[in-house]
Amino acid sequence: MKPLAVSMGDPAGIGPELAMQVAADRRDAPPFFLIGDADALARAARRIGAPRPNLRVIRSAGEADGNDGALAVLDTPLAVEETPGAPDPINADAVIACIENGVAAVRQGAASALVTLPIAKAVLHTAGFAFPGHTEFIAHLTEDEAVKGARGPVMMLAGPSLKVALATIHTPLARVPAELTRERIEQVGRVLGEALRRDFGIASPRMALCGLNPHAGERGHIGVEEIKIIDPAAAALRAEGWNVTDARSADALFGEEARKGYDAAIALYHDQGLIPIKTLHFWDAVNVTLGLPMVRTSPDHGAAFDIAGKGVARDDSFRAALKLAWEMAERRARA
Amino acid sequence: MKPLAVSMGDPAGIGPELAMQVAADRRDAPPFFLIGDADALARAARRIGAPRPNLRVIRSAGEADGNDGALAVLDTPLAVEETPGAPDPINADAVIACIENGVAAVRQGAASALVTLPIAKAVLHTAGFAFPGHTEFIAHLTEDEAVKGARGPVMMLAGPSLKVALATIHTPLARVPAELTRERIEQVGRVLGEALRRDFGIASPRMALCGLNPHAGERGHIGVEEIKIIDPAAAALRAEGWNVTDARSADALFGEEARKGYDAAIALYHDQGLIPIKTLHFWDAVNVTLGLPMVRTSPDHGAAFDIAGKGVARDDSFRAALKLAWEMAERRARA
Repeated sequence: MKPLAVSMGDPAGIGPELAMQVAADRRDAPPFFLIGDADALARAARRIGAPRPNLRVIRSAGEADGNDGALAVLDTPLAVEETPGAPDPINADAVIACIENGVAAVRQGAASALVTLPIAKAVLHTAGFAFPGHTEFIAHLTEDEAVKGARGPVMMLAGPSLKVALATIHTPLARVPAELTRERIEQVGRVLGEALRRDFGIASPRMALCGLNPHAGERGHIGVEEIKIIDPAAAALRAEGWNVTDARSADALFGEEARKGYDAAIALYHDQGLIPIKTLHFWDAVNVTLGLPMVRTSPDHGAAFDIAGKGVARDDSFRAALKLAWEMAERRARA
Repeated sequence: MKPLAVSMGDPAGIGPELAMQVAADRRDAPPFFLIGDADALARAARRIGAPRPNLRVIRSAGEADGNDGALAVLDTPLAVEETPGAPDPINADAVIACIENGVAAVRQGAASALVTLPIAKAVLHTAGFAFPGHTEFIAHLTEDEAVKGARGPVMMLAGPSLKVALATIHTPLARVPAELTRERIEQVGRVLGEALRRDFGIASPRMALCGLNPHAGERGHIGVEEIKIIDPAAAALRAEGWNVTDARSADALFGEEARKGYDAAIALYHDQGLIPIKTLHFWDAVNVTLGLPMVRTSPDHGAAFDIAGKGVARDDSFRAALKLAWEMAERRARA
């Protein structure tokens, strides 16, 4: 197994210091190398009082695999030195290059999977970046490559006791009903089902599908999307052999007992899935992109400019993202 | 303090057996009397193998207060004998009469507060009942009576570590954005703030307000309701002296640490509030109606026809509803 590639994310956010925290205390972290600005990483370590990192600058991902105890950094220089908490669009090209280099490293076979540290979408958009976020950008960078099974991207959040995939992501709530098509829900079901089998080792995955309306519409009394769109999508998935429920009352789906009844839930919109995952697993949930030709995970939080450089950021989610990426890549390698 | 009045709810649901479970093991239950069909209650006790209840049938709520150890039942006879699991609209009048008698008992001063056991709205609607549920019906029955402070009804769910009030309740998701007005949010904030002070004894309540869109709209990038409606409502409430946040990212609001930062959250739609409460407190959350001239609570679950009569229903939420109604009534009595 090749090491994981980790893109540094926004240099003014908490990404670099999380990388340095984990570098200083690798515990059970799987092998990884960084993609970013080596000087920025060293500065991040200094700011948070971490030990001076033993970094080995490399020029190509193929050199990452080494046994010298140093942490390899595929150097991707910033345009200007970062100011923690104050993201600068002038560094957008470097931030984007880190992601591109990470994707390329996996495609070249020099890395097993990609773990991305947080970017600030608004800053990248100012600089002309045309994608809603990592998920869509990485899907774009890999669109010429075949996917085994159904193609995503589908965003999933995974915590110790809950996995939830989203049918819509950063959609204003008022537009969610219109974006929810039968086709979209079926696609998410297929991508999720195949990922649970291939990447999570669940031979016969059980999927629970959320309704859109209160009490899943109460048989049409509180909205009709369950009857017109959601249940038909579930029936179509079952006809393909998938084990998926009809629309369930979303509020009854995330208690401790209910969660034992399925391997992953499908939420229809952002907060429906993110509220339970962050209520249960605020610190250690992982964002996983399903249905790509490569494994990609990331911590389930943003660049957190308000605390960047202060050494108070918790690395639980980043550690969990590393661990999960490694496990998923191992399963793919064995398959 | 007068005892609590408890309406039996649908005789074919789990209400009667919950009443008999608690009657058989009163533990720390506050004083209460029942409003329902005494024979149906005795049958419910027999079905679940509870001891034969010591019931004292009374003809008016004023007779409820007694020291004979018996449980008073303000008899409200059914039209036909119940069949557990099969609600019958022919009993709708009796079910409604229990609620009316409960409200009357509190208004007469014969009961301190009303706790309602679950009804089946669809069954009552078949019989011509014109209200969406208990909350609106009780508001209607008390609309001629003055409320101290802002008038509701506002639905709140209360669990040991979270209280959340709803700005819309049983609204299809597609209609939520249109129903969310600045006035509505302000009204909910006032009713909630006053209830936290008066009924929950929190002198300076802190309220957290959910956004509607993912990430609370990211400053207009993912929806504009936060800018146009929600934040202005929050600003108006603050101008009145209330401690309430602007629209917050709802997914970040219900983790353990975040919950320490406020006394109650305001959710803008059903699942946004019900998902976190039921994820955290599936068994023992309580439904509370705020902004009424009387205290009213109920268990946070339905009539559960699928398990009625089997003796497997958990009474945690009903016990919590009794306890909370008593505490709230005590605070009102002291004020």
